[in-house]
Amino acid sequence: MNEFELIAKLTRALPTNESVVAGAGDDCAVLDLGVTDKLFLFKTDAVVEGFHFTCETPPGKIGRKALARCLSDIAAMAGAPIAALVTIALPQSFEPGFVGKIYDGMNALAREHGVAIAGGETTTNPERILISISLLGTVQRGKQVLRRGAKAGDAIFVTGELGGSLAGKNLDFEPRLAEAHWVAEHFTVHAMIDLSDGLAGDLRHILNASKVGAEILKSAIPISRAAKRGGASLPTSRLTGTPAPPKPPLLAALTDGEDFELLFTIASKDAVKLLDAWRKKFPNLKLSCIGKIVPGEGILIRDKSGSHKLNAHGYVHFT
Amino acid sequence: MNEFELIAKLTRALPTNESVVAGAGDDCAVLDLGVTDKLFLFKTDAVVEGFHFTCETPPGKIGRKALARCLSDIAAMAGAPIAALVTIALPQSFEPGFVGKIYDGMNALAREHGVAIAGGETTTNPERILISISLLGTVQRGKQVLRRGAKAGDAIFVTGELGGSLAGKNLDFEPRLAEAHWVAEHFTVHAMIDLSDGLAGDLRHILNASKVGAEILKSAIPISRAAKRGGASLPTSRLTGTPAPPKPPLLAALTDGEDFELLFTIASKDAVKLLDAWRKKFPNLKLSCIGKIVPGEGILIRDKSGSHKLNAHGYVHFT
Repeated sequence: MNEFELIAKLTRALPTNESVVAGAGDDCAVLDLGVTDKLFLFKTDAVVEGFHFTCETPPGKIGRKALARCLSDIAAMAGAPIAALVTIALPQSFEPGFVGKIYDGMNALAREHGVAIAGGETTTNPERILISISLLGTVQRGKQVLRRGAKAGDAIFVTGELGGSLAGKNLDFEPRLAEAHWVAEHFTVHAMIDLSDGLAGDLRHILNASKVGAEILKSAIPISRAAKRGGASLPTSRLTGTPAPPKPPLLAALTDGEDFELLFTIASKDAVKLLDAWRKKFPNLKLSCIGKIVPGEGILIRDKSGSHKLNAHGYVHFT
Repeated sequence: MNEFELIAKLTRALPTNESVVAGAGDDCAVLDLGVTDKLFLFKTDAVVEGFHFTCETPPGKIGRKALARCLSDIAAMAGAPIAALVTIALPQSFEPGFVGKIYDGMNALAREHGVAIAGGETTTNPERILISISLLGTVQRGKQVLRRGAKAGDAIFVTGELGGSLAGKNLDFEPRLAEAHWVAEHFTVHAMIDLSDGLAGDLRHILNASKVGAEILKSAIPISRAAKRGGASLPTSRLTGTPAPPKPPLLAALTDGEDFELLFTIASKDAVKLLDAWRKKFPNLKLSCIGKIVPGEGILIRDKSGSHKLNAHGYVHFT
């Protein structure tokens, strides 16, 4: 049983109550806490040494990344973050200066986004550092964007450029809070997610939640320079340091994780208006229309030779 | 630098914002989210294999304990829990049935208290299971009880019986939510904490936060049967299995952790009224007045021979 199968099994029977608007299975839980115009977003995320960072990662970047991942999930709901709690599990021989710098990186990012670190907890994990952050945010009632609203005919958009995040961006990415908030304020966003598992995997999360399929245009996928340079020659398992087989840039853009860009859908009639307005509002961040939502299921990739089905592991049998 | 010194250093510089009524340094963070009559409580806590449970602990009790610890912190603020998120970090070779039973234990306790499990996350921790729970609760505005309100002259109360929790209670304790809510509704509670570090250590947290001292009466300390039976012959470090030196019962009641009883102070004029009302309301749970808050600092223990100062490690040099 892999992680996704386990989650599916566990989340079937979770206790709920009248506060829960959306529970497990989206970027954040959505809670109704009795405020007229607002709903609340509740998120937890963890980073683990050897998987999300190594002992050679600058500690400030470890702390920054731990918080940025949660902020990216709040962005994916078009929300605004309020307060975080930080659990840090440390080997008994921890180096206080190193831990202090982890907090420095986290605190600096928190201040940038007006987020309070309202407490937390330290505990012991003898073999490796693990940081678990929980974040509370807010969203205007009715403006929350779930994964399950994509409709056949929608245009699919993605911010930034994809792939090769391991070459550096996984530690330096900017959570797209302002962009998500702006787009949800000015357009009716049907579905949104942040890219943590890779474009193919995360698009599939939207499709499964919305019970639709997608056709994406090969030439429209924004491929990062890192992916083009072969960022995939970096080890994918930083735990063992085993070098991954070389990945073609398109495959890297489709399947590399930790891009933390936004993927969302809106009615296709609004697509051109969005692209024009975006260019004025965010001139330094690319927005790409990469395809459309279609009836059915799964992902088709279209190129000059026709449409090709993307298989379950995100791999497509062409170059 | 130990855990407490590290926490003190880290919490000095945490970012804050206008939502934070009380941040790091109490049982829960207290947040003002704009609801007229309510404040919100935000808490995170983790249990780690080898420290808070072992691979031989029945999995249902692991999950129950992980959530119960957080519920106990909500109780310590006189609050009510609403929704939790669960992060579980697992070795790659995890046993799905075992993990399922962890959730069964947690879910059952959540249902008992009307708490939603609104989501969470699974991640990898190769050497041991780690469960981090974050919990959101609510408290009537003005009824939240912090650690810092104890006043010279207050009577000090503790629920239940103390010490020897490792013999079993650490896995089976009942979070004192109903009791805390009732006492805060009917009396002006000046300070409250749940006993996780042991009576001496947690009383010291109240004293330090309130800038007062305490005198406790040796004969009034409620010592559990497990402590009397010598629960302290159990290994204190369940990681190494090293047997701890035998602990006299009084010392066990003062210094054993994980009792998860309530420790609180109220004006001494209300003490008898509280004891009478308590006996009617909670006939099956002992409430003991163990002493009083005094000016100054530190803990004195009084017996027939006079008052003795309890040293920083919770040990007292008499039997």
